[in-house]
Amino acid sequence: MATGKINVSVENIFPLIKKFLYSDHEIFLRELISNATDATLKLKHLTSIGEAKVEYGNPQIEIKIDKDTKKIHILDQGLGMTEDEVKKYINEVAFSGAEEFLDKYKDAGQDAGIIGHFGLGFYSAFMVAEKVEIITKSFKDEPAVHWICDGSPEFKLKASKKTERGTEIILQIAEDSTEFLEETRISTLLTKYNKFMPIPIKFGTKTETLPKPEGAKEEDPAPTQEVDNIINNPAPAWTKKPADLNEDDYKGFYRELYPMQFEEPLFNIHLNVDYPFNLTGILYFPKLTNDMNIQKDRIQLYQNQVFVTDNVEGIVPEFLTMLRGVIDSPDIPLNVSRSYLQADGAVKKISSYITKKVADKMNSIFKNNREDFEQKWNDIKVVIEYGMLSEDKFFEKAEKFALYPSVDGKYYTFEELESKIKDSQTDKDDKMVILYASDKEAQHSYIETAKGKGYEVLLLDSPIIPHLIQKLETSKEKISFARVDADHIDNLIKKEDTAISKLSDEEKDKLKEQIESVVGENSNFTVQLEAMDSTSQPFIITEPEFMRRMKDMQQTGGGGMFGMGNMPDMFNLIVNTNNELVSEILNTKTTKKRERLINQSLDLARLSKGLLKGEELTKFISRSYEMIK
Amino acid sequence: MATGKINVSVENIFPLIKKFLYSDHEIFLRELISNATDATLKLKHLTSIGEAKVEYGNPQIEIKIDKDTKKIHILDQGLGMTEDEVKKYINEVAFSGAEEFLDKYKDAGQDAGIIGHFGLGFYSAFMVAEKVEIITKSFKDEPAVHWICDGSPEFKLKASKKTERGTEIILQIAEDSTEFLEETRISTLLTKYNKFMPIPIKFGTKTETLPKPEGAKEEDPAPTQEVDNIINNPAPAWTKKPADLNEDDYKGFYRELYPMQFEEPLFNIHLNVDYPFNLTGILYFPKLTNDMNIQKDRIQLYQNQVFVTDNVEGIVPEFLTMLRGVIDSPDIPLNVSRSYLQADGAVKKISSYITKKVADKMNSIFKNNREDFEQKWNDIKVVIEYGMLSEDKFFEKAEKFALYPSVDGKYYTFEELESKIKDSQTDKDDKMVILYASDKEAQHSYIETAKGKGYEVLLLDSPIIPHLIQKLETSKEKISFARVDADHIDNLIKKEDTAISKLSDEEKDKLKEQIESVVGENSNFTVQLEAMDSTSQPFIITEPEFMRRMKDMQQTGGGGMFGMGNMPDMFNLIVNTNNELVSEILNTKTTKKRERLINQSLDLARLSKGLLKGEELTKFISRSYEMIK
Repeated sequence: MATGKINVSVENIFPLIKKFLYSDHEIFLRELISNATDATLKLKHLTSIGEAKVEYGNPQIEIKIDKDTKKIHILDQGLGMTEDEVKKYINEVAFSGAEEFLDKYKDAGQDAGIIGHFGLGFYSAFMVAEKVEIITKSFKDEPAVHWICDGSPEFKLKASKKTERGTEIILQIAEDSTEFLEETRISTLLTKYNKFMPIPIKFGTKTETLPKPEGAKEEDPAPTQEVDNIINNPAPAWTKKPADLNEDDYKGFYRELYPMQFEEPLFNIHLNVDYPFNLTGILYFPKLTNDMNIQKDRIQLYQNQVFVTDNVEGIVPEFLTMLRGVIDSPDIPLNVSRSYLQADGAVKKISSYITKKVADKMNSIFKNNREDFEQKWNDIKVVIEYGMLSEDKFFEKAEKFALYPSVDGKYYTFEELESKIKDSQTDKDDKMVILYASDKEAQHSYIETAKGKGYEVLLLDSPIIPHLIQKLETSKEKISFARVDADHIDNLIKKEDTAISKLSDEEKDKLKEQIESVVGENSNFTVQLEAMDSTSQPFIITEPEFMRRMKDMQQTGGGGMFGMGNMPDMFNLIVNTNNELVSEILNTKTTKKRERLINQSLDLARLSKGLLKGEELTKFISRSYEMIK
Repeated sequence: MATGKINVSVENIFPLIKKFLYSDHEIFLRELISNATDATLKLKHLTSIGEAKVEYGNPQIEIKIDKDTKKIHILDQGLGMTEDEVKKYINEVAFSGAEEFLDKYKDAGQDAGIIGHFGLGFYSAFMVAEKVEIITKSFKDEPAVHWICDGSPEFKLKASKKTERGTEIILQIAEDSTEFLEETRISTLLTKYNKFMPIPIKFGTKTETLPKPEGAKEEDPAPTQEVDNIINNPAPAWTKKPADLNEDDYKGFYRELYPMQFEEPLFNIHLNVDYPFNLTGILYFPKLTNDMNIQKDRIQLYQNQVFVTDNVEGIVPEFLTMLRGVIDSPDIPLNVSRSYLQADGAVKKISSYITKKVADKMNSIFKNNREDFEQKWNDIKVVIEYGMLSEDKFFEKAEKFALYPSVDGKYYTFEELESKIKDSQTDKDDKMVILYASDKEAQHSYIETAKGKGYEVLLLDSPIIPHLIQKLETSKEKISFARVDADHIDNLIKKEDTAISKLSDEEKDKLKEQIESVVGENSNFTVQLEAMDSTSQPFIITEPEFMRRMKDMQQTGGGGMFGMGNMPDMFNLIVNTNNELVSEILNTKTTKKRERLINQSLDLARLSKGLLKGEELTKFISRSYEMIK
């Protein structure tokens, strides 16, 4: 038996790294700036513990483009490298300098805010450059070195005259990557990835207007000066303590994050946890707008202030992906599949921490400023209702603050609603019937009828409501929801007393026959005679709750009964036997006149339910014009 | 100056490969089966050219799970490896065996159907296994070898007793990957990635029922036998020539691809090109259903019959991503970002080839079977209209087959429409006015009025129609589109002759004042007096085309004028001064009665335009019930 060692040949691995390390070439800039930040923070740490006997000062990172020579320069004032360190950290691929540093200063590691996880980042430069140079001078008293590599594994190393501490990376941009020599492209990249990195990043200069000197004339131009153009905010709000921030700070940071958003956020939630994982961030409930582009301004994921992605699927529970803001955590594994993410224990904990924080914040706003909460309910309800439906823990917590608005603009918690309607809306089988409408306009006449009986009607108009009320009905006892047009009001909440019909059984049979002979062709109406108040309308069209809800549920996806979505709509035509007009129909002698009365009444009932359309509506209107004259 | 060579140390690169090579660990099975297929196809090629003097036979690949020992076995009957080859291909990472093979047999390469692009695929085994063994016997007369590696770069190599040609890979599944020991998990993976690979893949056995022997009694059970369970179809339809397939074959393959789809596809398009890129495939126009889950059954991308992804964004033009089917091309770069894909020259060519093929197929179906094409128009129009809007080349080609249906169910090409309406619908400024409705029901009375004038009314109801007609108006000369409710019909298509008003100017002023005093509160109605046919309705509400279209365009995203989406709806209330009822209004003495007439007429006009809702509708209905009695 032989043993041996697997050999990786550099000639072959190099193009692979180039090709497969990152699918997005633009990442090179983020990686190089991360390295520069890293080197600066390391120096800060070493000076703070007295291990580096130099002045830390106010170091910054600078990006320069030279279009003529087709070069990009990235300069930092960090700790620099000695010749030995270049040999160790640069010439040995995949030997992570950051890792060794972390090992050495383990306890202080977190605070020093080290970014790089492995040394490969530097090599991403070769994705866009045909030649890469490093000119570096260590903070230690050693000569500067100049390293040059043209993308083959061969490199050159020589002495350099650089005198200031720090590292300069020079990229000779390759032919296929000249887009990165455009100022606007680099500026866009800096804004995307580096907007909140902890060391100031300079990209060019800008002109600043100074105040006029005393005694200047009005027509004199204000003096100006060229200043460094710093593209980042090194201390973004989420890195600060909640106690040090007020409402305006949170709103200001929202505008920093989404400069194109003109609406102010409704609520903010500051996330801040050290154990068992490290996570900071600020989430915002945005105001709902008609803007179709929900996908644009999403929650951004950072790692130690470096932008990673705005796809937080799997990290944030799905119902919260409608929020905006920032999450910063070094503990979220990257470069893994979403399905792996969802199974990861740490990520699960992060997700449930965020859920809990959102619920707690909602609860505290509800308790401390109910009026404000009610005003914003319409904008936040989709998130909360979807959360109640999809996360059982959130459902439990939301019990305290989830609101059920009435058509008259009152807001109840479920408990308040129950105590309000328990007595009047409990039916003879001891079930509390909660009446609701999905559209105040379309169901207006039905709502009025229910209100006329003294009942409370909720306005539940989110698309997921059919699913949510299904869940409420199964999780609570002896309650049921019914839409106001699901039946006539005396059937929706059945009481002991039965109404007396003016008509005899024989008259009823005759009436039913008369009506069915006209309605008959509309086979989706079932005629149903009911003894109601004489003041109730003669004809009412209703749509039974169960079928309609199942169909609604299928349309919003999931739930509902299979195949129901394609079933025809079924309606009942309720005829009020105690209404005067109905008596008139029964007693009209001429068939033609009776049919006209039935048709006109039927049309009005259909109008009321929004069912009179097209040709039938046009005919109805013509007939009505005739009647006016 | 010193020079040197960058050194990649295996200890460090190995975990990187493990971690970053593929973000989805499940890929290991696809990679190992690809290698096995590769080895088998290579043998086939070598025997076919006489270089391998062995019997090719009917080789298959077998997958076995051993739950007790926590092992997965992948066996092939391909060319196997000698000890030297193991050292060369396995022990040298990133040394691509397939590449060298391709170099040697360049011309035959394509036909031999080589899958592997580089040798790293094998190492993906370490993503799920803590130990990997290779037992392999070459087709050459050399002893079999047994290679063992536990994931460190150390390996063992010893002799093996294996006598049959081929390779067996044995994975000792790691603790965190035991999911892959589940039969259903592996079965799902095989179906996902390997369903159409070119060598039969066996996974377990299944029971087959045989015909009963002659003379068997009825109560005798039919005999059964255990047979290999082959999970793939090695010769899927797209690899065959179009001439060898009929309609049923295409429909059958659709069912193979999407077993959960019960609807048959409408059309299929067979793609087949060798130069300047290699691409085969079959695309299907699916029947539109109410199923919200468009994302589920998407176009699948293969490379040499290996499933890669069902996200074809960037490869297929966006308007065709609504289609279904398969695309197989070795020329599409993978593992690159979508933005890079879109800029890639080869991919651009592929995309425009697909667009052209789809247009040609549509055109040929239209020419050969227009009736069928018309019947399916409603299902395919979204794709075609969206293509016309987004791809100029497609817009030009679609000129020949894009249909404009009328509300009466006739279908015109633009050319046919033009010759049909040119004479009657050209206005006094020589502009051809194309009338359309977006909803046959809601715009019924307006449609009837236009038809009454002998005009043709199109039914254009896709959400992108406002954008498409905008494009048609700018790309064609002297035409304009107007929705039937945009104005009253004599204004929509203005002819030379002006109608005479029954009323004097004084009477008109008085009438306008009377009406405005009632309507006034509804500030979004502009009263406009017009002399129309006396038989036309007294009041008509219209909604000017320009504003409405801009608002519609903004709602469907893009286009339209910024901010218009939030403007209030503006309507004109057209009063027909020649209508009898209008004269009656003018001449009514009592204010109360006149107001009642105006209100009832206004309500009927609003009903006709779908504007009477909620409380106002309920009041209208009550008033109307009163009038019946």
